[in-house]
Amino acid sequence: MKYCFGVDVGGTTVKLGLFTVEGELLDKWEIKTYTENEGERILPDVAEAIKGKIAEKLLKAEEICGIGVGVPAPVDKNGAIERAANVGWMAKEIKKELEELTGFPCVIGNDANVAALGEMWKGAGEGEKDLIMVTLGTGVGGGIIIDGHAVVGAHGAGGEIGHACVEPEETESCNCGNKGCLEQMASATGIVRIGKKIMAENTAETKLHLDNFSAKTIFDAYKEGDSVAKQIVDKFAEYLGTALAIFTCVVDPEVIVIGGGVSKAGQPLIDAVAGYYKEHAFISCKDTPIVLAKLDNDAGIYGAAKLVVA
Amino acid sequence: MKYCFGVDVGGTTVKLGLFTVEGELLDKWEIKTYTENEGERILPDVAEAIKGKIAEKLLKAEEICGIGVGVPAPVDKNGAIERAANVGWMAKEIKKELEELTGFPCVIGNDANVAALGEMWKGAGEGEKDLIMVTLGTGVGGGIIIDGHAVVGAHGAGGEIGHACVEPEETESCNCGNKGCLEQMASATGIVRIGKKIMAENTAETKLHLDNFSAKTIFDAYKEGDSVAKQIVDKFAEYLGTALAIFTCVVDPEVIVIGGGVSKAGQPLIDAVAGYYKEHAFISCKDTPIVLAKLDNDAGIYGAAKLVVA
Repeated sequence: MKYCFGVDVGGTTVKLGLFTVEGELLDKWEIKTYTENEGERILPDVAEAIKGKIAEKLLKAEEICGIGVGVPAPVDKNGAIERAANVGWMAKEIKKELEELTGFPCVIGNDANVAALGEMWKGAGEGEKDLIMVTLGTGVGGGIIIDGHAVVGAHGAGGEIGHACVEPEETESCNCGNKGCLEQMASATGIVRIGKKIMAENTAETKLHLDNFSAKTIFDAYKEGDSVAKQIVDKFAEYLGTALAIFTCVVDPEVIVIGGGVSKAGQPLIDAVAGYYKEHAFISCKDTPIVLAKLDNDAGIYGAAKLVVA
Repeated sequence: MKYCFGVDVGGTTVKLGLFTVEGELLDKWEIKTYTENEGERILPDVAEAIKGKIAEKLLKAEEICGIGVGVPAPVDKNGAIERAANVGWMAKEIKKELEELTGFPCVIGNDANVAALGEMWKGAGEGEKDLIMVTLGTGVGGGIIIDGHAVVGAHGAGGEIGHACVEPEETESCNCGNKGCLEQMASATGIVRIGKKIMAENTAETKLHLDNFSAKTIFDAYKEGDSVAKQIVDKFAEYLGTALAIFTCVVDPEVIVIGGGVSKAGQPLIDAVAGYYKEHAFISCKDTPIVLAKLDNDAGIYGAAKLVVA
C-alpha cells in the first residue's frame, strides 16, 4: 500500500490528511497555525505532525510517496512564494524547507487551485479533467483545471476570477485596488454590500433587517419568497452567472463547481445563477452543469494529496 | 532532416506549407477550396498537393513526420468534426480520411487554436508557453495556449472568446444567437456597428462618411486625431481591453497576441486597448504585454505544422 499526505495551510489552522494514493482519506486532523515571527513554526509543526502520524500508524518511509501542500499565496515553479500575508510568511522556499524537514518529496500549490483539484479528484467534479471551481467565501476564489492540472499562470494569477471586472461603473474599491471585481458582488461581504444598496432604495415590505444582515439571512429570506431578498439574490446571480458564462468561453470546462460558505445556500443559489449563466453562455456551453462542491473544508487536503499522485 | 506539412483549410483557399520540424518554412502555396458536394474534393486535393510537393522536392516518406491541419470547426479528440459550414463539410473523420489518403500521421485542430499555436511557435509569442490570441476579423476568434497546448475544451469551445458577453444591455443579436458578444463590438463589422451608433448621436465635425465607413477608415481618421473616430475607437478599446482583463484573470498568460485584419491598424490600436486593459486587469497581470501578431496569414500553416511536432 502506498500513502500520501495532504496539507492545507490556513490562517487559523493547518488541516492535514493521510490518504491512500487512490484517494481514500484514512485520517484527518488539525493543528493550530502559529503566525508569530513570520510564521517560522508552521513548517516545523507540519513536519512534526506528519512524522508523528507515520509513527502512530506504523507506516514505513518507503510507503510514503510524498506530501502535497496548499498555501494561501501564488506559488512559483520551484514551490516557493513571495509572501503569504494570512500566515505571516515572507519569501519562503516551502518545497525545499519541507523536504529538508521531512525527507519526503513535497509539491506545493496555491490553496484555491488545490481545492479545485480536490473537487476534481474526489468531489463534485469526480471523473472530469476540465473544471472551473468558484469559492464564494469572505472573498471569491477560483481554480481552473485543464486536463487534470491546475492553471497556475505566468504570475501565479491563474484562476483569480474573483478579480474579474464585472461592473466597470463601480465606484467603490475592491481589496485588490481595482473597481468592480466579482468579489465585490458575489462574496459573502459582496452580497451584503449589494443588499444594503438595494435596501436603501427600496420601500417594499421585507423580512430582512439591517441589524442581522448577512449572506445567510438574505438567502433564508429568498427561500421564503421575500421580494427584496429576491432582488438582492437576482443581482448577485446576474453578476456571477454572466461572469461564469464569460469564463466558459475561455476554457470550456466539463463542469462548474461552486463552493465556499455562501454556497451553503444550496440548490436555490445554483438555480438563480444557472438562469443567468444559460442566458449568456456560448451555445455549445449552455448545458455545462453548475453544481455544488461536495468536499466542503476537506477539498484542500484532498487536492493537496492529489498534487503528489498526479 | 525531418519535415512536416502544415495545412490551413479556409472557405476560399487551402494554404499549405512545408516545414522542417524546427519550424523553418521551406515552401508555401495555396489551392482552391472546392466546397461543392459537401466539400468532398477538399481532402483528396490536399493529399494530392502534398504528394506532389514530396515528389517535387525528392523527399523520402521516412523523412516526413506528419501533416497538421487547421479546420474552421470544433474538432473532437479523434480528429473528427460535426460540421464546418464554411467549407461545406458535414460530419467528417478528417484525421482518419487524410491518413488513409496520404499514409502519414495527421493531427487536426480548430483553426483559431492552430493560429494561436503558430504565433506561439514562431510568431509574436515565440519562446512563451502560455498565451491568449485574439483574431479581430469578420468575427472575433480566439485561441488559448496553456503550457504549449491549445485549450480545446469540453465542447470544442475553448478560446471562443468572441462570444464572451461584454454588454448585457445589448438588444441586437450576434450570429451565435446571444446578445452583447465581444464579436458584436470588436470585429470589423462590430466596430462599424458601434461607429454608426456614435455617428447618429453625434454632431461634431468629422472626416468620417457613412458611405465609406469601415474599421480601416475609422482607424485612419483616429490616427489623424478625428474626435468622432476617437470616440468610436475608445468604445471598441474599452470593450476589448476590459474583456482581455477578465480573460487574464482566468488563465494569466505570458502574452496577449492580437491578430486579424482589424489589427492592421497597428500600434495605435494596441495602445488604446492596453489603456483599458491595464485599468481593469488584476494587479499581478497589469504588465502582461499586448502585442501584434507577426505571422499574418501564415499563422495557420505554422500552427498546423506545430501540431505534428508537439
